[in-house]
Amino acid sequence: MSSPTGDDDALKIRRVTRLRDGAITDTDDALVIEEPLEIRLGDERFTVTMRTPGDDFALTRGLLLTEGVIRNGDDIGQIRYCDVGEAGDIEGDNIVTVRLKTPPQSGRLWQRTLMAGTSCGLCGKAALEAVGMQADPLPVSSAVLTRETLLSLPHTLRRHQALFRQTGGLHAVGLFEASGNCLCVFEDIGRHNATDKAIGFGVEQGWLPWAGPGPLTLLVSGRASFEITQKALMARIPVVCAVSAASSLAAELAEANNQTLIGFLRDAGFTVYAGEERLSLTHHA
Amino acid sequence: MSSPTGDDDALKIRRVTRLRDGAITDTDDALVIEEPLEIRLGDERFTVTMRTPGDDFALTRGLLLTEGVIRNGDDIGQIRYCDVGEAGDIEGDNIVTVRLKTPPQSGRLWQRTLMAGTSCGLCGKAALEAVGMQADPLPVSSAVLTRETLLSLPHTLRRHQALFRQTGGLHAVGLFEASGNCLCVFEDIGRHNATDKAIGFGVEQGWLPWAGPGPLTLLVSGRASFEITQKALMARIPVVCAVSAASSLAAELAEANNQTLIGFLRDAGFTVYAGEERLSLTHHA
Repeated sequence: MSSPTGDDDALKIRRVTRLRDGAITDTDDALVIEEPLEIRLGDERFTVTMRTPGDDFALTRGLLLTEGVIRNGDDIGQIRYCDVGEAGDIEGDNIVTVRLKTPPQSGRLWQRTLMAGTSCGLCGKAALEAVGMQADPLPVSSAVLTRETLLSLPHTLRRHQALFRQTGGLHAVGLFEASGNCLCVFEDIGRHNATDKAIGFGVEQGWLPWAGPGPLTLLVSGRASFEITQKALMARIPVVCAVSAASSLAAELAEANNQTLIGFLRDAGFTVYAGEERLSLTHHA
Repeated sequence: MSSPTGDDDALKIRRVTRLRDGAITDTDDALVIEEPLEIRLGDERFTVTMRTPGDDFALTRGLLLTEGVIRNGDDIGQIRYCDVGEAGDIEGDNIVTVRLKTPPQSGRLWQRTLMAGTSCGLCGKAALEAVGMQADPLPVSSAVLTRETLLSLPHTLRRHQALFRQTGGLHAVGLFEASGNCLCVFEDIGRHNATDKAIGFGVEQGWLPWAGPGPLTLLVSGRASFEITQKALMARIPVVCAVSAASSLAAELAEANNQTLIGFLRDAGFTVYAGEERLSLTHHA
């Protein structure tokens, strides 16, 4: 089990005024930290994202995979923070530099494909097509994920959300084996960052992109948008679950790619939007 | 009061499998729609965002203001959907074209400033400075927003969240006068989009950027990130409230710009992170 970011990195104490139970008090509060991270490919600036510091290399690996820049962890030669001086006058711990072993898989980023214009005009179908240009549908498999395992996942995620209990300000994303065993949980103020951190951890460990026979499952503490199912598809993750709702386009992307998508996974219930064939929904007493 | 997007635009019915109260059923479910929207400035593509359709002109006006492209609604000459044919083979209702009366206030976009590099290196301070290059601090004002008004806002927001009750998949953002009167509520699958829609509505109505004496208040149904406080600052909104947590950088941006920032506004309580001088926290029976 990989732990989320330690408290020192992710929280900042701030003096606040609080109204609770009818009384006003001045007190110390722990706020989740948000800072920009710059990711460089060689000497070139690739992107800047606002994230919760910590697990920056996992975030970087995950982002490069889900954006289609690398195919797996072997494409990364070196990944490190900028040295003092190199990034200007500061210590450079908000700048990560990556050296690739192979040229980036450029021209395949779905968002840039979308920005560059698509054959059929701009609509949900165009977004699905842009993703389809960089990822094949997932292989169809037989039912192996049980109703009982599914229902256990949110409890496991919450147990690992050390930070959430303190600030209430973080999204959590976990990866789970078919047995319900939790492989990792990562948190971030941005849901897309938490997803990239979890995926990047699997990339570093060598088990993502997923090629195993069992239905590896990604669980996100909030909503499942198009972006989340797209990132999971790039990491070849067959099952995506959300504690809250899924969007129409997330369901359409999942269905078009043989991905299982489940929403409202909480309180002993859930809703299956796509890919029911990977689930065993009969109750096993 | 402006209503949020109608159900027809924002919801799509989908056949799903649901587990509830121990029973599996096949049923129709209403999913919130997510589709790409392209915004063009003249003939040039400005950005693509994944949004919930509806209120696209408000979203566009808000985005142009909060990104620093326009100073107010008067800078917009024409705003319209693409005609059939112009956008390719589809009807073009995912493409909005804007003609400006004045050249865009370019080079001032804070995110691009951040991407282009800053004098002190990349850190939270750099993000604050990038915002500071395009917006002055808000004027300091005397206390006029009461504790009772503050506590009433989440209830008012929820009353107007017609869609939320159906899908659970949407963020809501409302704007309120000092009396607690609700000026508008907008919803979207993306929190930044819901914020831009609310701000864009005020831009169209002519009362944003805010120049009134009372503390206009923006309330977001989720977390207050740096991005939300930055957008509110561009619209000169003095008070930002969140039902959930605020980030460290959101609090720092608010403090640096005389903005009032309040989090965890729910269950008869709240936390004030910055700008307490605009509040009257004594209980008025």
